[in-house]
Amino acid sequence: TSFVNIPAGSDFTFENLPYGVFSTKDNHTHRIGVAIGEEILDLSVVSKFFDGPILREHQNVFQNESLNDFMRLPRAAWSEARKKLQELLGEYSPLKNDSALSKKALVPQSSATMHLPAQIGDYTDFYSSIYHATNVGIMFRGKENALMPNWKWLPVGYHGRASSVVISGTDIRRPQGQTKPEGVSEPLFGPSKLMDFELEMAFFVGGEENPLGTRVPIEKAEDRIFGVVLMNDWSARDIQAWEYVPLGPFLAKSLGTTISPWVVTMEALRPFMVENPKQDPVPPAYLHHEDPYTLDINLAVSIKPENGQEHVVAKTNFKHLYWTLKQQLAHHTVNGCNIRAGDLMGSGTVSGPEEGEYGSMLELSWRGAKEVPVGSETRKFLKDGDEVNLSGKCEKDGKRLGFGPCRGRLLPAE
Amino acid sequence: TSFVNIPAGSDFTFENLPYGVFSTKDNHTHRIGVAIGEEILDLSVVSKFFDGPILREHQNVFQNESLNDFMRLPRAAWSEARKKLQELLGEYSPLKNDSALSKKALVPQSSATMHLPAQIGDYTDFYSSIYHATNVGIMFRGKENALMPNWKWLPVGYHGRASSVVISGTDIRRPQGQTKPEGVSEPLFGPSKLMDFELEMAFFVGGEENPLGTRVPIEKAEDRIFGVVLMNDWSARDIQAWEYVPLGPFLAKSLGTTISPWVVTMEALRPFMVENPKQDPVPPAYLHHEDPYTLDINLAVSIKPENGQEHVVAKTNFKHLYWTLKQQLAHHTVNGCNIRAGDLMGSGTVSGPEEGEYGSMLELSWRGAKEVPVGSETRKFLKDGDEVNLSGKCEKDGKRLGFGPCRGRLLPAE
Ligand SMILES: [Ca+2]
Ligand SMILES: [Ca+2]
Ligand SMILES: [Mg+2]
Ligand SMILES: [Mg+2]
Ligand code: NI
Repeated sequence: TSFVNIPAGSDFTFENLPYGVFSTKDNHTHRIGVAIGEEILDLSVVSKFFDGPILREHQNVFQNESLNDFMRLPRAAWSEARKKLQELLGEYSPLKNDSALSKKALVPQSSATMHLPAQIGDYTDFYSSIYHATNVGIMFRGKENALMPNWKWLPVGYHGRASSVVISGTDIRRPQGQTKPEGVSEPLFGPSKLMDFELEMAFFVGGEENPLGTRVPIEKAEDRIFGVVLMNDWSARDIQAWEYVPLGPFLAKSLGTTISPWVVTMEALRPFMVENPKQDPVPPAYLHHEDPYTLDINLAVSIKPENGQEHVVAKTNFKHLYWTLKQQLAHHTVNGCNIRAGDLMGSGTVSGPEEGEYGSMLELSWRGAKEVPVGSETRKFLKDGDEVNLSGKCEKDGKRLGFGPCRGRLLPAE
Repeated sequence: TSFVNIPAGSDFTFENLPYGVFSTKDNHTHRIGVAIGEEILDLSVVSKFFDGPILREHQNVFQNESLNDFMRLPRAAWSEARKKLQELLGEYSPLKNDSALSKKALVPQSSATMHLPAQIGDYTDFYSSIYHATNVGIMFRGKENALMPNWKWLPVGYHGRASSVVISGTDIRRPQGQTKPEGVSEPLFGPSKLMDFELEMAFFVGGEENPLGTRVPIEKAEDRIFGVVLMNDWSARDIQAWEYVPLGPFLAKSLGTTISPWVVTMEALRPFMVENPKQDPVPPAYLHHEDPYTLDINLAVSIKPENGQEHVVAKTNFKHLYWTLKQQLAHHTVNGCNIRAGDLMGSGTVSGPEEGEYGSMLELSWRGAKEVPVGSETRKFLKDGDEVNLSGKCEKDGKRLGFGPCRGRLLPAE
């Protein structure tokens, strides 16, 4: 256990130790920290303690303003860092009885501003929940053709916009754009009327870049998966419907994508891995792996109307994903595409099999056919002033961890 | 005229003065340079000469390893730099009689290695040639439905992969991937059999980032368009056909995208602007502008088979674009998407109305229905070992400039 006080129910347990980038009022420098209880361990203050065989040559990565260089180190370095963090935050910590040092090194989360954990070179969004893809398919193409012919053969995905990925707490503005409602002869221009969230998770890529023209085979995919965050892929459904043929979603998505600030490492998530879903048909060999790499993470979405209270509108689980993170990565690079530390890979909207487990208003309101209760109000899509918050929590055999908030408020169109 | 010798037919005339990033054998530092004749003016050596009202505070941008910081300066700074370059390379240049300085400042292009001109934060590819979109539409959907209903209302585009944008001269490897030829019941895995080029141009974004949630109105779009390069958007047609539904092209494109190293500025291109194409229907007001911003640039594609000679397979002109660069940018940001200096925006394949003017093998061979002569050989799609080269040249009233090469050789699959 940690010498730092960890309140009951805290997301940031001694098992968690997620990485983030923060600054404080009195120190605007962006620094790398690790969340523990209600504190942040400032790694720029304690970098000299990382004296293991790999990290002693790389202590400078903890002096950086983003996690990219640390992420780029080999997986063994991430593991070495975790062991050292367990020492530094454990019962026999050298900080425990050095009050000058611990005062410098431990910063209250309440006094910190969080920033993007890494410079995101490229952001990709997959579409890996079979329940989500099926729901959307039924709505737009009918039950017979719900899943596209390629869906079970490869993890469908698309390139997203990296510049508009923002950190939890950033306001999102309702976009202007072209839409073409049924029945009108010419497209309309104005604010989107069908604003939505998408409950997703996303992983940050780590490790050395694979040179263009080479792949990351699935057996090595784990070396390139650093850790996971929550992600809200804000979506303007009416803009999307008009623009997306034939090259895919564009302005319906690039208006903003919110991620949670704390990157929970794959090592911390290891105890919460469960069997992978059965895949039928069996995908091609380059996507084949047997080891469990499916994450049992309880997810929830809540909406807080302006001047109202937060209400959960959906609960689901990340284990409902059909394609594993390893399969996503192996597929992404099978054509020789180079991926770099700090790249972000979204899962696609996570929906479960049951009605209350849908990860978007599109599904929850079934394309606007029903009202979704939000406390004493109802919604079909989002209203101006609504704040959407995602949460993720793991629990097993007394071990627990959480992801912290992934919040964003929808501002009215300009 | 310039005191530097400019051979007849050189792309790098005194009117051109394009920016690039280079290094040499004896100095591996990436430096910013300007091409002139067969030389490069090394701006890191002459940065102190930029003593105008804006640049004297920003001479450091010419000491950088990429053009991003220079691109980020306001348009007036680009203009000031151009005037100074005309002085530094003109007849009364201070370099002319200072042989020590001019020996340091002028580097033969033959001794330089070119690099990406900027760190590309995001790369977007549009689809703005009506001839190309119509050709593809006819092939895949028939003449009646050739153009999608949205095509004439907005410049269709998609987010591309920034990490795999490479500089002219980089080899491109034929990708492995899934394809599903007609008649087979399950997808196949193996090297793409339908490798193609796409003849495109692309512009680099400049100026200060528009904050997320704000737009770049079309009246201000020019302040954010720095300059133009040639671009070959390598495409695996068989992978694309199987993967692209419903989220757009992904691995068919991210295998590599080649750009030419010299960024030709909009100011240099100003004399070659012609009337914009008539747009019918008239697009929404946010896309409306009257001033000519269509570029008259003669484009050509050649293929050089392994051990063979280079043969031109298509000639066309950039003026065939239906949507202007200003319209692309205004559209891209109408939803509040932030764009940053160094972002790259591709035009989409440039095809003209006539058969010899098609910018892809897909169109030239009409989906493989005919053989395209390449010297004594023929092609339907690209063969291993083929080198594709794009060229672009402007000429008017005795003024000329060119873009330099945009080459890449197709390596066999791994
Ligand atoms: Ca999504
Ligand atoms: Ca293209
Ligand atoms: Mg998004
Ligand atoms: Mg490409
Ligand atoms: Ni640098």
